[in-house]
Amino acid sequence: MIFLFVSPGVIISSDIVIKCKAAVLWGLKQPFSIEEVEVAPPKACEVRIKILATGICRTDEHAISGAMTTKFPVIVGHEATGVVESIGEGVTSVKPGDKVIPLFLPQCGKCSSCINPNGNLCVKADVTGKGVLSDGTTRFTCKGKPVYHFMNTSTFSEYTVVDESSVTKIDANAPPEKVCLIGCGFSTGYGAAMKTAKVTPGSTCAVFGLGGVGLSVIMGCKSAGASRIIGIDLNKSKFEKAKAVGATECISPKDYTKPISEVLSEMTDNSVGYTFEVVGRLETMIDALASCHLSYGTSVVVGAPPSSKMLTYDPMLLFTGRTWKGCVFGGWKSKDDVPKLVSDFLAKKFDLDQLITHVLHFKDINEGFELLSQGKSIRSVILM
Amino acid sequence: MIFLFVSPGVIISSDIVIKCKAAVLWGLKQPFSIEEVEVAPPKACEVRIKILATGICRTDEHAISGAMTTKFPVIVGHEATGVVESIGEGVTSVKPGDKVIPLFLPQCGKCSSCINPNGNLCVKADVTGKGVLSDGTTRFTCKGKPVYHFMNTSTFSEYTVVDESSVTKIDANAPPEKVCLIGCGFSTGYGAAMKTAKVTPGSTCAVFGLGGVGLSVIMGCKSAGASRIIGIDLNKSKFEKAKAVGATECISPKDYTKPISEVLSEMTDNSVGYTFEVVGRLETMIDALASCHLSYGTSVVVGAPPSSKMLTYDPMLLFTGRTWKGCVFGGWKSKDDVPKLVSDFLAKKFDLDQLITHVLHFKDINEGFELLSQGKSIRSVILM
Repeated sequence: MIFLFVSPGVIISSDIVIKCKAAVLWGLKQPFSIEEVEVAPPKACEVRIKILATGICRTDEHAISGAMTTKFPVIVGHEATGVVESIGEGVTSVKPGDKVIPLFLPQCGKCSSCINPNGNLCVKADVTGKGVLSDGTTRFTCKGKPVYHFMNTSTFSEYTVVDESSVTKIDANAPPEKVCLIGCGFSTGYGAAMKTAKVTPGSTCAVFGLGGVGLSVIMGCKSAGASRIIGIDLNKSKFEKAKAVGATECISPKDYTKPISEVLSEMTDNSVGYTFEVVGRLETMIDALASCHLSYGTSVVVGAPPSSKMLTYDPMLLFTGRTWKGCVFGGWKSKDDVPKLVSDFLAKKFDLDQLITHVLHFKDINEGFELLSQGKSIRSVILM
Repeated sequence: MIFLFVSPGVIISSDIVIKCKAAVLWGLKQPFSIEEVEVAPPKACEVRIKILATGICRTDEHAISGAMTTKFPVIVGHEATGVVESIGEGVTSVKPGDKVIPLFLPQCGKCSSCINPNGNLCVKADVTGKGVLSDGTTRFTCKGKPVYHFMNTSTFSEYTVVDESSVTKIDANAPPEKVCLIGCGFSTGYGAAMKTAKVTPGSTCAVFGLGGVGLSVIMGCKSAGASRIIGIDLNKSKFEKAKAVGATECISPKDYTKPISEVLSEMTDNSVGYTFEVVGRLETMIDALASCHLSYGTSVVVGAPPSSKMLTYDPMLLFTGRTWKGCVFGGWKSKDDVPKLVSDFLAKKFDLDQLITHVLHFKDINEGFELLSQGKSIRSVILM
């Protein structure tokens, strides 16, 4: 095997190990260490991708903190844009040189979720944190040790290898440092409104939690034609941005003594059609359910529930006619829908600039995570 | 005021009090007492109805047992067919002589539920057991005492008075002793499948609980074109009828050691699109939720939850993509949809004979409730 340093943009044959830089996490709660890693060539049905830009998402932080089961050492990162460097045997959906988005939620096209028009949680999704590709092995090595993959993507590396089901071709004209957000955060929120809730024109929506995903929910509600979009957060410093992306008004539960469901009912003459929980707190999930109309309301759980925690609620909230839904990646079928979302962005149907607050160099990745944990960023994007 | 005994079929003017027979409940857990009652004329926006046939539903039993808040003395019964005897001032939607179905779930046409295309829990529904008409008074008197109404209908009486929003005109050719079931039990189950879940052709459904409403759910799944309909009940004696109305197979959880959700997943190659809880047990609601597909499944709570009981479940069941819904009266808009369901019955789109196991005279009403509590009847219909 020949080891070779590869300059940006150079396409090399698929049987060569690439040496490049990657941000390695050696253990729980440790900072990223930029290391030289070896990236093995793609095996059959795999694709090696040169990463161009990658966003910093809270799910990556969950891997660092231990809130999410992860094997170490690992290369995290799952929201990115890249270019196909080489492909393994049998790959047909992408070719070297294609601009692509890696998919943390794969779409194999064959499992029970993929063959149903309304399903998207593909059986190939790495929900248990195995940290390996489909054949059970890793393509990363650092200092002689194998390094695990993360959510089928591992984008905090100049090069990564993914299964063919975990990558989709996008428009060559898409700006990588923007559309990388379509790989996770933006699509999760936007899809919760557009695809999962199917918000109707003229309706009233309430969004609990105004982080990056919550803002994307607001953008989805706006695209769907909602008349009123009420943003809810304890932190009022988030209201300005929420209004900039489409919220018609914003409130803080701290300003009221009565339950937020009553506040919303009174504000809207009892007409809240859709509510979205984008915090990941059990109590907020119940508040959001109670806040949508008792007969025709729909409430969507967008924020991931804390693991292994049970939720206790009054089932009469549901019995009267409400609909309670969950969704992963906004309900989109990743390989099919991500290219369409990129086209919608290029057609100016939504504006990702509103979500990107910081652009950083790869060497400053730890700074990006500090901005996130201090609540100073919505989305930081790393240029590789 | 002139008191007058009215023979069946005679239309009298609306300013006369009618003396007739009614089944009065004088107190909690007491048998019905057939009494002579006075039925006052309809006030403005009210309709007096001669009842022709009325079904015995478990909700009536809940009033007797105290499981449902009810004021005594009361005339219960809420699933019936009748003929309009007289109308109060301002009534425009029905006229004397019209064949009608009283509506325990009203449709006022003006409230937040009524004006939304997907809502049906009208603000005029008597959900708290007030037992009076819109003006706050009762039209029934017995032995000099006022007798309360029940669920805006009180059909265990030869004559009753309802608000105009609680009655709808049906086809004059409809057989009263059959279509009375469209007033509650049948529509609740059939609508849960057709209107609330919107079961899709070729899908796989599982129905938990094979009483009259569960059988109606099966009929709805069949009408919607489901390919597989799995009936589930601890009592295997219910399987034959379930198969007669459309179940393709039936199972008892007692025959398995593993969770019913796993049993169903294995039986169907993990393809259960829709599940229905028609028992009213919290544990079964969670089983039904877990039994539908984790990404695209929909579970409908049809059985009323036990009052004031909280439900505890793992929110990850929802987060992966499932939809959990409730519905009252199957989600139908009562005044609009009941006449259409009657027409569908006349067009032989479903068969109510399968649900009617007993036909009784009014004097034998207590026998009808004994059949119900002993599990010997699906639906008993009383001819007045």
